[in-house]
Amino acid sequence: MYYILVYDVNVDRVQKMLKLVRKYLNHVQNSVFEGELTDAQLEELKDAARELMNEDQDSIIIYCVGSKRWSNRQVLGVEKHNVDNFV
Amino acid sequence: MYYILVYDVNVDRVQKMLKLVRKYLNHVQNSVFEGELTDAQLEELKDAARELMNEDQDSIIIYCVGSKRWSNRQVLGVEKHNVDNFV
Repeated sequence: MYYILVYDVNVDRVQKMLKLVRKYLNHVQNSVFEGELTDAQLEELKDAARELMNEDQDSIIIYCVGSKRWSNRQVLGVEKHNVDNFV
Repeated sequence: MYYILVYDVNVDRVQKMLKLVRKYLNHVQNSVFEGELTDAQLEELKDAARELMNEDQDSIIIYCVGSKRWSNRQVLGVEKHNVDNFV
């Protein structure tokens, strides 16, 4: 399935979280990622994210949007995909 | 249709952009919004966003995910919807 993941993680943890999420998904904007995941990969990512995050302070939302085709995507302005120097 | 909007806008413009997008969508995380829009509302929002943004520096991605039902949404950690003191 195709997923969009957005996070809002404290600055102390954001580097590690970025590194983790990038292993699974494409970095499309500041704290936004998207890509295909199997059910197993999704569970693996969620487990690892829960280990890194502080569940009382940080927030991760994962939207399952079926397939990439179904998620009609429009970009205004710069398309900042895979911008590594954002960290 | 149901939309997810994410932005990455320069700090000089972010307050105005936040105010604009909030008129149309629910604020669910730092720079993430979601909600129902008619085609006319979407065009209105895009036009207004283009006026505010610097298209060479800022980025807005709008995902159309059909209906809210179709977008299976999972939250890890805090659900920070409508957190106004994030500004």
